[in-house]
Amino acid sequence: MRRFFTSLLFVIFAVTSAVSNENDLKPNIKEFTLENGLRLVVIPDRRAPVVTHMAWYKVGSADDPQGRSGLAHFFEHLMFKETNTYKNGEFSASVSAIGGQENAFTSWDYTAYYQKVAPSALADMMKFEADRMQNLVVSEELFLPERDVILEERSGRVDRSPSAILSEFSRAALHVNHPYAIPIIGWEHEIANLQIEDAVRFYKKWYQPWNAIIVVAGDVEPQETLELAKATYGKLAATQEPVERKWTKSPRPVVAQTLEYKDERVTQPSWQRTFRAPSYLIAEKGEAEALDLLSTIMGGSASSRFQKEIVLKQKLATAAGAFYQGSSRDMSSFGFYGVPRADTKLEDVSKAIEEQVDLLLKDGVTQEELDRARQAYLKTIIYSQDSQVTLARIFGSVLANGGSIEDFTSWPERLRKVTIEDVNKVARKYLDRNRSITSRLLPKEG
Amino acid sequence: MRRFFTSLLFVIFAVTSAVSNENDLKPNIKEFTLENGLRLVVIPDRRAPVVTHMAWYKVGSADDPQGRSGLAHFFEHLMFKETNTYKNGEFSASVSAIGGQENAFTSWDYTAYYQKVAPSALADMMKFEADRMQNLVVSEELFLPERDVILEERSGRVDRSPSAILSEFSRAALHVNHPYAIPIIGWEHEIANLQIEDAVRFYKKWYQPWNAIIVVAGDVEPQETLELAKATYGKLAATQEPVERKWTKSPRPVVAQTLEYKDERVTQPSWQRTFRAPSYLIAEKGEAEALDLLSTIMGGSASSRFQKEIVLKQKLATAAGAFYQGSSRDMSSFGFYGVPRADTKLEDVSKAIEEQVDLLLKDGVTQEELDRARQAYLKTIIYSQDSQVTLARIFGSVLANGGSIEDFTSWPERLRKVTIEDVNKVARKYLDRNRSITSRLLPKEG
Repeated sequence: MRRFFTSLLFVIFAVTSAVSNENDLKPNIKEFTLENGLRLVVIPDRRAPVVTHMAWYKVGSADDPQGRSGLAHFFEHLMFKETNTYKNGEFSASVSAIGGQENAFTSWDYTAYYQKVAPSALADMMKFEADRMQNLVVSEELFLPERDVILEERSGRVDRSPSAILSEFSRAALHVNHPYAIPIIGWEHEIANLQIEDAVRFYKKWYQPWNAIIVVAGDVEPQETLELAKATYGKLAATQEPVERKWTKSPRPVVAQTLEYKDERVTQPSWQRTFRAPSYLIAEKGEAEALDLLSTIMGGSASSRFQKEIVLKQKLATAAGAFYQGSSRDMSSFGFYGVPRADTKLEDVSKAIEEQVDLLLKDGVTQEELDRARQAYLKTIIYSQDSQVTLARIFGSVLANGGSIEDFTSWPERLRKVTIEDVNKVARKYLDRNRSITSRLLPKEG
Repeated sequence: MRRFFTSLLFVIFAVTSAVSNENDLKPNIKEFTLENGLRLVVIPDRRAPVVTHMAWYKVGSADDPQGRSGLAHFFEHLMFKETNTYKNGEFSASVSAIGGQENAFTSWDYTAYYQKVAPSALADMMKFEADRMQNLVVSEELFLPERDVILEERSGRVDRSPSAILSEFSRAALHVNHPYAIPIIGWEHEIANLQIEDAVRFYKKWYQPWNAIIVVAGDVEPQETLELAKATYGKLAATQEPVERKWTKSPRPVVAQTLEYKDERVTQPSWQRTFRAPSYLIAEKGEAEALDLLSTIMGGSASSRFQKEIVLKQKLATAAGAFYQGSSRDMSSFGFYGVPRADTKLEDVSKAIEEQVDLLLKDGVTQEELDRARQAYLKTIIYSQDSQVTLARIFGSVLANGGSIEDFTSWPERLRKVTIEDVNKVARKYLDRNRSITSRLLPKEG
């Protein structure tokens, strides 16, 4: 997540700098809303004769009905099957036939589908995508085998990965009573119980034009793209009224929790501590920007405190870092992690990290560190060569989460305003060990 | 909870021994089901001219809708207010006027209301109780002030009690993804958002004759009691079809969690470790009985291992005990706790308990210990002087949770069959430290 969010920044800079000077960061993005409520965002990008077409739905794992975890993600599978119009797999075959790429992804906040094709194929992609927004077939012959496929996917991704197993429980501890506590892929016993009726209800509830955002990035004209969208998506009538996304909230955290998981398959112990922290969308003014720079200062670059002190000088860890997941729709997290060397113990690394955090809370960061962290962002921007898919992904995720394009175009300016006082303030406000979640991954002793 | 469950046993013995010999433990309890689905249980108890009348509803905090925690408990308040028939508080005033007692209680599994009055008042109690099962008034003038009362109740019970604060989070950790994770009284922010419509919907859904069990214990004739019930409860028609109680399940536990809460108000540190363990209702044959005796052996009496070793011999703790909550409808818990002396540390006590548990897992219990634990139950039975309210409470809770009277009357016999192998087996099966939840309550350092 963090890596993704960081890349968001870079792409924006890349895009905006292509169309404007440093002080005018408004890219040439066009937004439209069709009569049925569907939103269209066109991002001209003429670097190559290619277009990325993404359909975003404002529904994710956090919208899974209680006891039905994995349902949002299930559509990542079903949407590639049959519709009333097209045969099972026909859309994918069509993308493949023209040498295109396609994929889909689900987060707690949203679900998205995309194709990267030649601009001449865009009309066709819209035709297929609009079709599966409303005409998906969910039959027993398709649903039940796919449920087994997903159980196998879970088994591979989670059950065979000790760190993923621990991570599921750490997340549940961090997000008590909040739907971010559930795994995107779903709890195994709940996936196994998903029923066709659940999928049909979910599809009808959320796969509606008013809940979709189409992002088209590439070698296209906005007005022409709008006409194509009107001719395809524009023909869909909502079959249900818009519904509100209702998520439960976590109680105020007051307890420090440590989770320890031992597994004979662990060859590399690791330590992680997370704190609840607000995302960009819900943070008080300037806090998220300060958290991003704080994570860079502590553990986000080759010249970070952790890297210099713990990895290079004290030689305790092979890796030690910090992360801030700023891109969520709701309460998110800030964290530290460390991986001991073969000749050091987990406790040596966790103690060293704690010392560094204590030092931070006591003395704060320096102006030099802050400037360096900010510069690190800028340098990365200059050299970043981001893909069109990433480009479309940025704006899709921001808009799907309720943000605006302006939230992002003003971001560099807001980052420039962050002071050392801002950074020290968020550190002291959010990095309270007595309300943190610590994870210890260890090999199982004989 | 444990104390209650233990008392269940004692009362059954007391009751049954009054009506039968030791080998025939079938008490003279009569069960009826009215045409509208309401169940009536009559437990003759002629020790005094008094009757306990209880209305049990098979709905509790675990049935609170997602994000609406505290709703089941809210009725403990609303049910004493106004109905379409009677003024606000009229029922209570009537109980009080005849020198009766009344109360109500909510668990995760059920909600119950009772009055203890002279037998001549039973008809009147049934009239009032049947009335509020269907005619409750939930108006804004009643609902909103009561919500504030409940928030104040929560503040007093939880926010002012460091151990209660920690306990809420420990429970959430033990019951990840299960509705037992929510506090009975509700999370503060969710109580504050409860709406009248939530209450009305909940009331109509669950306060129905088919979801009620009336328990009458006391100086009454079963047949006469049935006639009274028919004349009151029997007149209620269900206004909704029976609904199924659907609870989400926890994922398989694999992680050890430690929760630490520091609060300047803590004068007495304490340590607790809980393990998921099946209740009587869902355990494999003989397991729950063995868990009950195991808890007695380890920490349930003056001659328990913890008491002898940790409190008396090593003089590390002022208290150290074990508990098993066998009476839940779903997955429950087994646990250990310890309270250090003023001159010892929390770690000294927790280490001593861990040593005792390691010893148990290694060597098991002895036949002598098992026999002594079983005898402890029997002795307590003989001397127990249980109240009629407890008597009614036993059978109400068992039946509300889906058990049968026979489940309980056969219990002594099942306890007699427990072997040391049974006890050692459940100890090794359920007391796995790597899947336990540990709570540490500590004073906050200056």
